[in-house]
Amino acid sequence: MDYKRLYSKVVGRSKASAIRELLKIIARPDIISFAGGLPAPDLFPTHEVSEIMQHVLTHTPQEALQYGTTEGQSALKKELIRLLKETENITVSMENLLVVSASQQALDMSARAFVDAGDAVITASPTYLGALQAFQAAGADIIGADSDGQGMLPSALESRLAELKAQGRICKFIYLVPDFQNPTGTTIPEERRIEILNIAKKYNTIILEDSPYRQVRFEGKTQRTFYALDEGNGNVITMFTFSKVLVPGFRLGYIIGPEEVIRKYVILKQAMDLCTSPILQLATAEYLRSGRLLKHIDRLVQAYRVKRDLMIKTLEEVMPKEITWTHPEGGLFLWLTLPKHMDATELLKKAVENKVAFVAGVDFYPALNVKNDMRLNFSYSSHEQITEGLKRLAQTIKENM
Amino acid sequence: MDYKRLYSKVVGRSKASAIRELLKIIARPDIISFAGGLPAPDLFPTHEVSEIMQHVLTHTPQEALQYGTTEGQSALKKELIRLLKETENITVSMENLLVVSASQQALDMSARAFVDAGDAVITASPTYLGALQAFQAAGADIIGADSDGQGMLPSALESRLAELKAQGRICKFIYLVPDFQNPTGTTIPEERRIEILNIAKKYNTIILEDSPYRQVRFEGKTQRTFYALDEGNGNVITMFTFSKVLVPGFRLGYIIGPEEVIRKYVILKQAMDLCTSPILQLATAEYLRSGRLLKHIDRLVQAYRVKRDLMIKTLEEVMPKEITWTHPEGGLFLWLTLPKHMDATELLKKAVENKVAFVAGVDFYPALNVKNDMRLNFSYSSHEQITEGLKRLAQTIKENM
Repeated sequence: MDYKRLYSKVVGRSKASAIRELLKIIARPDIISFAGGLPAPDLFPTHEVSEIMQHVLTHTPQEALQYGTTEGQSALKKELIRLLKETENITVSMENLLVVSASQQALDMSARAFVDAGDAVITASPTYLGALQAFQAAGADIIGADSDGQGMLPSALESRLAELKAQGRICKFIYLVPDFQNPTGTTIPEERRIEILNIAKKYNTIILEDSPYRQVRFEGKTQRTFYALDEGNGNVITMFTFSKVLVPGFRLGYIIGPEEVIRKYVILKQAMDLCTSPILQLATAEYLRSGRLLKHIDRLVQAYRVKRDLMIKTLEEVMPKEITWTHPEGGLFLWLTLPKHMDATELLKKAVENKVAFVAGVDFYPALNVKNDMRLNFSYSSHEQITEGLKRLAQTIKENM
Repeated sequence: MDYKRLYSKVVGRSKASAIRELLKIIARPDIISFAGGLPAPDLFPTHEVSEIMQHVLTHTPQEALQYGTTEGQSALKKELIRLLKETENITVSMENLLVVSASQQALDMSARAFVDAGDAVITASPTYLGALQAFQAAGADIIGADSDGQGMLPSALESRLAELKAQGRICKFIYLVPDFQNPTGTTIPEERRIEILNIAKKYNTIILEDSPYRQVRFEGKTQRTFYALDEGNGNVITMFTFSKVLVPGFRLGYIIGPEEVIRKYVILKQAMDLCTSPILQLATAEYLRSGRLLKHIDRLVQAYRVKRDLMIKTLEEVMPKEITWTHPEGGLFLWLTLPKHMDATELLKKAVENKVAFVAGVDFYPALNVKNDMRLNFSYSSHEQITEGLKRLAQTIKENM
């Protein structure tokens, strides 16, 4: 059977995630890996999850185990509306809110809602790999706008938009991870957010704001979301997930946006998976209702702050002076830059021989071929692994400088 | 903000499911509804689900709550391989098997893997509405092949394929629900399956076999799956789900197919939702491992058989002689045909006034405008609701004949 004549163009455009393939290779227990983006499993609130599952299956078993509505279970949506008001000063109604099967589905759904093959979208350069995958599958022409230590440069964004306009093209959306970005760990300051938002408005396009790490802030002042800064003008769609603040295994996230857009997303989701698991939605609703979430986030923030501090302190101790890295105020990652002549992909092979792993930065760039960065995750490894792993990494770098 | 200039063609092609919209309208408690396709919630194994959740969270909490692999958790896949061997005499390896977020995701993934806008696919006429939605979103040209009481007519299929060939076009896949089809309740006999399979081979296309109800057989001999009949020749991709045999709330299904195709599906799923919830996969694995699933299916079969019998007996008692209906050997639905001059969509308005509801058949036809059928679900309603609801329906029909 020759399947090639049957496959769609989507198959041709889709490629396996370099990271997910890498993670399989480096799963050896003797390798210390800073490559993944996994939360620390020892911080999972296992006992609480067990309790809330019992609660849900005792009090609302038939709702939990039946099909749900595509829009999401009301019990969860009500808690989310309360949470957004309380923690973000964002006011949304049930019609602005859609529950999804975690952020990746939100990215895929957004690509499907806005992108036809060849359509332009703009992302920071570098940006989150899973977003690039989803946009590529839809056939997007992904245009990178350069970033500095404070995220996407407004001047770079405006140049890209002006170039598109000169070509008679439009930008379907601007994709941003404004808080502790994956991969760089940088945060866009509020003044820059306002600048970016105004540019989006000027060019009649929308901002897709992806904020999986936002609640994991170790220090510094919380910057308002693009959604809040837009003040209900309908220029922003924002995606949140419980993967980093509760557990990834629930595959649960939510989107807020203009009612009209959310209605379109609901129709797309009907055909994509009918609904997200009601039992996991109700469990999460109970986790929120009982006040456990914010307490759990406090625990996470404390634990991850210690790990970030340890990673930065160790980097200062062991790395040659030519190496630089970002100082994220939150999240799970930092971004390390090697001297220009070095290639992180090549270095990774040597690193794995020395039993340490990371992700080379090159795959995070939508178009550029920048070879001398790497992403380091600090949430997953133990303290001992962080110090030992970074020693191995520094050794590898020195051997290959 | 004018979103229309930003939306993709997918949005233009997607429409809200008539059934899901209808279900919202008829959710009034005084209406007896045969419209949905819901399993009976009083048969959910709530206590067992609670037990296995505790088991999973006690024994494998970190695997349950962490990200999973895109392919699916090994523990579940091993149980599925055993189940397929034991109950279907189908031999598959881990590489032939992909866990998905229930059947609708499998349909969406299949449409994305094979369909570019304008591509032809063939389905039975009528066929499952959720499949039509997923194929439409991908822009498929959905061609219906006529059916009789034993499912799709091989002669009709061959005519459609020959017509496409004469136009220089190919058929990307043939979609079939061979067992107790939604909406008609009909089952394709094994000889006919072989005929259809041979026609597919002759025209170099594949069969997409969707079998959500297969295990819910009340009587008669089990017909081998297309997958088994194909004997590993790679012409069949088969989709199963736990929605009808365990609980829909887990949103869990699985696909078996040629290794090469499954590999493509895995890459698509990476961009769609990364992975299906590990906690629900591990719970289902334990449900299978402990031998609970087959016992539970026995209970379902017995309960639904009584309901089907009651529905058919009541129809015989209350319906005018001009009305006919199918006699499904399993599943959740039967198909009722009104006299040719009647319009089931019009009748539904009167039925709702009389506090009974169903789904008009017209939306299940990919192209034809057949107005005088309706789908009746017998799994969800209680015995009292079945007898009383059918009396109301017969009364409505008599008033409008």
